[in-house]
Order: sequence, then C-alpha cells, then structure tokens
Amino acid sequence: MTTWVPDVSPESPFSLANIPFGIITTEHDSTRRAAVAIGSYVVDLKALSQSKSLIEGKDEVFSQPTLNAFAALGRPVHREVRELLRDILSSGTTHPEAFKDNEELRTKALIPQSKVRLHLPMAIRDYTDFYVGYNHAYNVGVLFRGPANALQPNYTHLPVGYHGRASSIVVSGTPIRRPWGQILLDPTAEPKQPTTAPSRRLDIELELGCFVCKSNDLGEPVKVEDAENHIFGYVLLNDWSARDIQAWEYVPLGPFNGKNFGSTISPWVVLADALEPFRTKGLEHKAQPVQDYLKESKEETAFDIKLEIDLITPEGDTTTIGVTNSNQLMWSFPQMIAHHTLGGCNLNTGDLLGSGTISGKEPSERGSLLEMSEGGKRDIMIKGMDVRKFLKDGDTVTLRGTCGRQGEYVGFGECTGTIYSAIQR
Amino acid sequence: MTTWVPDVSPESPFSLANIPFGIITTEHDSTRRAAVAIGSYVVDLKALSQSKSLIEGKDEVFSQPTLNAFAALGRPVHREVRELLRDILSSGTTHPEAFKDNEELRTKALIPQSKVRLHLPMAIRDYTDFYVGYNHAYNVGVLFRGPANALQPNYTHLPVGYHGRASSIVVSGTPIRRPWGQILLDPTAEPKQPTTAPSRRLDIELELGCFVCKSNDLGEPVKVEDAENHIFGYVLLNDWSARDIQAWEYVPLGPFNGKNFGSTISPWVVLADALEPFRTKGLEHKAQPVQDYLKESKEETAFDIKLEIDLITPEGDTTTIGVTNSNQLMWSFPQMIAHHTLGGCNLNTGDLLGSGTISGKEPSERGSLLEMSEGGKRDIMIKGMDVRKFLKDGDTVTLRGTCGRQGEYVGFGECTGTIYSAIQR
Repeated sequence: MTTWVPDVSPESPFSLANIPFGIITTEHDSTRRAAVAIGSYVVDLKALSQSKSLIEGKDEVFSQPTLNAFAALGRPVHREVRELLRDILSSGTTHPEAFKDNEELRTKALIPQSKVRLHLPMAIRDYTDFYVGYNHAYNVGVLFRGPANALQPNYTHLPVGYHGRASSIVVSGTPIRRPWGQILLDPTAEPKQPTTAPSRRLDIELELGCFVCKSNDLGEPVKVEDAENHIFGYVLLNDWSARDIQAWEYVPLGPFNGKNFGSTISPWVVLADALEPFRTKGLEHKAQPVQDYLKESKEETAFDIKLEIDLITPEGDTTTIGVTNSNQLMWSFPQMIAHHTLGGCNLNTGDLLGSGTISGKEPSERGSLLEMSEGGKRDIMIKGMDVRKFLKDGDTVTLRGTCGRQGEYVGFGECTGTIYSAIQR
Repeated sequence: MTTWVPDVSPESPFSLANIPFGIITTEHDSTRRAAVAIGSYVVDLKALSQSKSLIEGKDEVFSQPTLNAFAALGRPVHREVRELLRDILSSGTTHPEAFKDNEELRTKALIPQSKVRLHLPMAIRDYTDFYVGYNHAYNVGVLFRGPANALQPNYTHLPVGYHGRASSIVVSGTPIRRPWGQILLDPTAEPKQPTTAPSRRLDIELELGCFVCKSNDLGEPVKVEDAENHIFGYVLLNDWSARDIQAWEYVPLGPFNGKNFGSTISPWVVLADALEPFRTKGLEHKAQPVQDYLKESKEETAFDIKLEIDLITPEGDTTTIGVTNSNQLMWSFPQMIAHHTLGGCNLNTGDLLGSGTISGKEPSERGSLLEMSEGGKRDIMIKGMDVRKFLKDGDTVTLRGTCGRQGEYVGFGECTGTIYSAIQR
C-alpha cells in the first residue's frame, strides 16, 4: 500500500503501516484535538471527521483535548478507525471523495508537522513504572551488590514495579530542569550527612510506555489472557533520574524525588494493533517457574522495536550512545497488567505503564548513563572530543524507536528533552 | 457559640467549631454536590447557596461532584466560607433570614446524616504516602533489623515518602476485598519459592491524610513557609496493607501490590483552619540538623488530634485496639510539601498526602497490627474471648480522630471498612 499524501519519505517512522494518534494545536486554532501522523504531515481528525464520519455517532471523541475518550471506546474501535484511515490515506482508497479528492478538506485537515504543536496525548491517571528490563536490572544490581547478588530473589518471579508520579509527565520537547535534592557528597563518610544541592548525577532511562484503554473495577483482577484488550498503545518514555538523590532516599520505600521532577513521553501513541506484526520472543525464559496467573499461551510476547539514544551536546554534536531492542524485557505488558491487578487494583483509561529501563547484554546496548559509565566510574566518549558520565546542563537526549523496514516503518518519532540548569535558590 | 440546628450532641465531632466539607447524594437527588456536617445533620450547600450566596459569583463550585473547584479557590476563600457558615448556623446569626428563619430552605437543605450517602470528597490526582510517624518507623525497623539499625540513615534527614496508588482510594464504608498476591509461605526456605494465594497478613495503617488545594508549576518548588497556603484540609486515612505480599515484593522499589488494593479515607474534609486552634509540638526535635529548605519559623507544627482504632469482629464485638495522637509525627505537612517539591515536582489541587502510620511510644498506642502483634508473633487480645494477629474476613476497622473538648469537638467522623473474603479463582 502506498499513500497519496505527498513527500512521505521512505525513512519516515509514520508510514501507512503506522497511523499513530496524538493531540495537536495549530497557530490558527489553539483548541486541542486529535490527529494522526502520516509522513511529514498530520491529519486533523476533528476536521476530517466533521466531513467523513470515522466512528458512527462517536466522532466527538476527536474534538476532545486528550485521546482518553477515543481510547475508552476499546480495541475493536481503534482497529476499525485505524483501518479506515489507512484506506482513506492510501493511493487506491475506496473513499476518494472523503479526503483525497476533497481539496477544501485537504487544505484544512492535512497539515505539515512543522505547523503543529504536539501535546500530551492522554490525560494521565496513575503512572506505574515496572523494572522488567532484565539486563538493566542485572547491570545495576552488579554495580550495587556484585554479580552473585545482582538480582533480588523476587526478580524472576514477578514483574517488579512501583507507583510513579503522574503529574510531572511531560510531552517530548519540554525542557527538564536539573533538580535540587538531598545528596551525600561523600557517601562513604560516617555519620552520613546530606547536603541540599543540584543533582550531579542526572541520568536517563530508555523505556517503553503503555497506555491503558479499558478500566477494571476495584477488586476485579484482569486475567493475563484478557489483558491485551486493556492496551491502547505505546509510547517511548524517558524516565529522567537523579541518581545521587535516588541513592540517598530510596531505602526502604523506593525512588521518590530522584524521579518525580519529570518524565518525558513521545507525542504519538502507536496503537497496539500497529505493533502486532512485530511480535517476537522476549526474555520470558528467564522466569521459571511461572505462576499460573502470569502464564500466557502466546509465545511471542515482546516486540522487535529497535531503540536508540542520541545525546546532543550544547555545541550541537550528536552521538548515538546506545542502541538496544524492546525484546530485552522479561515480562510482557499483559503480564504486567495481570500482576498489577492480581490483588484487585483498578487500572483506568489513561493509566501509563512503563517497562523499566531497556538494556541489551552488550556495553553498546545500555539504556542509562549509570550503566554506560559503570556507576560514574568510566567516561562515555561522545563527539566533539568530549566525554560524559552524567548529563550536563544544555545536553539534549533524544530517544527513537522503529519497527519494520524502509518505506513501511512503524516508529514512535522522537522523545526528546533538554536539560536546563537548576534554579537559583 | 451555639447552633440553632436541633439535636447537636455535645459528643458530636461536627460541632460549630468544625464545619467539615464533603460530597453527598440523597435518595431523591442522586446528583453529587457539596455539603457541610453539623451535629447529626448535613447542610446541602448547593441548595443553600442557591438561596444565599456563599461566594459571590462562584457558588457553582458547590454544585460540582467533587470539592476540587472549591479547594482551588484557595485558603482565604475557604476561611471566609467557613466563617460565614458558622455565622449562618449559629443561634445568634446575623443572617437569620438566610437559613434559620427560612423554613422552606431548612426543609430542603438541612438533611439528617442518616438520609445522605457520602462520596469521595475530592477527585484524587496523585497520592503520596509519607513515613513520618517516627515511632512506627522505629517499631517496624526493630522488627526487621533490630534496635541498633531500626532507622535508615536518611530517616532523620528527610520526610521519607513514596508514590502511592490514587485509583484505589475509596470513601469510608466501602468494603475491602482481601487481596491475592505472591507470598512466601516459608520465608526462611531456600531457594525462595513464592505461592499465589490470598494474603494471610492483612493489616491496617492509621494515618492522617492532607489534601492539596493550590498547585505549583513543574520546576517551581514550594517554600516551606508558603506551604500552608497549599493545604485544603485533612482526613483520616487507613492505608490497608498486605504484609506478606509487601515483604516479598518491596525490595528494591518499595511497596506495590501490598498496598494498591485499597486505601480508605474519611468522607469529611476538616479544613486546615478548623485545626489551627489545636497546634502543638510534634517530634521535630528528632531531626537534627535540619536542612534549610525544611526549617520552619513556627514551633508548633503538629496537631493535637486524639486518634483511635476500633476493631469490630464479625460477631459484632468492638475493641479499641489502639489510641494515639497525631503529634507523633516528626515532620509537618508543610515540610512534606517543601520536600516533595524540592526538585520541582508539581503538586495539584486534589493531591492526597498521607502522613505514614502514626504510633505512640507505648504498646497501647500503635497504629498497625504489625506493631501490635510484634510481627505476627503475639496475640492481640480483643473482646469476645477472641484474638487477632492480622485481620480476619468479616472484621471491620474504624478509625476516629478528635480535637478539643465536649460541645466543641473538631472531629473527622468515622473512617471505616469491612474485610470481604478473597475472590474465588
């Protein structure tokens, strides 16, 4: 299938095979509304659906300021709408009058991406961050406890996760201010005496994020085999982390100020159906034996998404500092949902689930600077004859994720953020 | 000051000194709307404000299904409305025509509590649970690590807290279903092999909850001296906890399924101003030295709230199993807010902050069964010749909190929940 939309580069992450959903505004219309991305354009779904109904009687969901109402309609509706849009946007469309041959509508609803501003696609309810990137958990465990005790005894039995901060999740492009926090300047000195200072160990975490579309009632677990129906789609997630703040605060209740100053997601939600062709095996075999409530009949429960991390210095030099794949997860999102709801916890439309940091086995495949610099002990070489252990003010980090092949890429676009210096106090 | 409202018992937690806010429905009007409690009645503020304006031009906040819009108007408005309501409800009111002498309105807007259903007072955004009950942290630390290492090194330097689950917070009276989870039947056996089963160690946590009224922008910390302006009011909070699930899962990222199956809050928000007369010293002296951003000029930063825990068996026998006081906290809510926002985390109207479990020093003053039973090793004696270590199906736990003296009590009403048996799987 090819599209009639002009100038769709074969390198675009937004091929006709994708059709990701987002929320836009434009200079001339500051009302937030739904759109899909195709090549270097977006399609304004509010405008399109006013001319050609996309969901009989429910088109008002595309005029909402978030995708929550659309998400809540459920997987079968997402599938229908995506298929209809793929038809409408294809060269051989069965509905040429709907858009392709409607010049007035094209002028109005087909907008260059450079002319739109992208917003948080969902009103995020609760945010849960898991820790199911096996190699990351292992690498970090080695740094803190050595190889013999790298993983906690529970690690291979359940998808470890914790409740994160929803309010500080921002859309790609939003600057991230270096946080102040309590840190130990000398962690070895006794008695331990913290200082209040800007973080010196500001880090990234490359993650895959998953939006929930279907709620479950409190007290009603979601079975692992039903969990796919609760998944709206996926985004890239950078869970910025202040390692020095985190190290001091996290025992015994987990990360707090080391994480809650900001998390960035990519603006386009890649629908669950768009990723279906890229199913592959993950690291499920690391978990043995598996409790019944986590057992899946599918064998391919991970996705083959190539993931990359670019670091751009204040001087503008770009280095790809990590390349990995989302098949490096040991539990699937359906397993995370089954575990999350095992005790009856209710998930809601708009909840975001993070995978945890994704790292491969090789040094070049790590998803955090903490791992790349081996706990801050080793320089990470970057372009411009420069090095990093952690992030400097003015650094920009961009995550990318892509499935498939040239001309048919299903990608996430950029998940990017620039570090602003800490506030003056 | 006395009230003209009939039958206000001198034992009522809802004296004229209180005026707590909640959300009600009635049999004849299922629209959620705001109300205040007075004695054994509630005042329907939607009905009252349609006759007598309570906030010029903003009375629509009382017709909302939550108190968020009212809360967002800010402390000075809460103060004015509460003072006006105290006047309107007092025997010597300067506005007798507004309510006291308006029989038609009285019939409509003064409703016996037995005729109303109470709902969650706020749409809860993010929920953060702190751990600043010093004696609780110490007692639990002794159980796990012995008295020499009971408290972590960070404990006396910062208000330890973690992000909790907002979606499963329910209003008093909502049943709590015993959660399933991964637990170690024999925690000493190696290798550790969990079982999926209903929790055998279901516990309570007696906490004070604090609702945020004023938002701060991402990247803009709230100074401790400004933090009072961000506080709407207080509720009682029972942070139900499955200790066996928690014990297996909580390292390294903190509690998750051990907590997220349900938390209960009392239905009436006691405004921050209503608690002002009950300021007292807490356990601030346990924290030395104090970082600058946590230093308060006020000396009395805690509240003198008498707190009680009743356990009611399925047979109906009631035992008060714990009596303590909210002055057993070592950090104030302004300090918690200053710490939470230190790195720039944005709090929003409707956020709930929990104090952490409140225990006194004495065995009779403990806020959790874990402490009362010394980690499940000791029987807790209750009426009906019965004992508990943790909760049985059918048990009801009711928290109460009261300030002041007879005839002028400022209290929270009940925060109650009954344990339903685990679902069949």
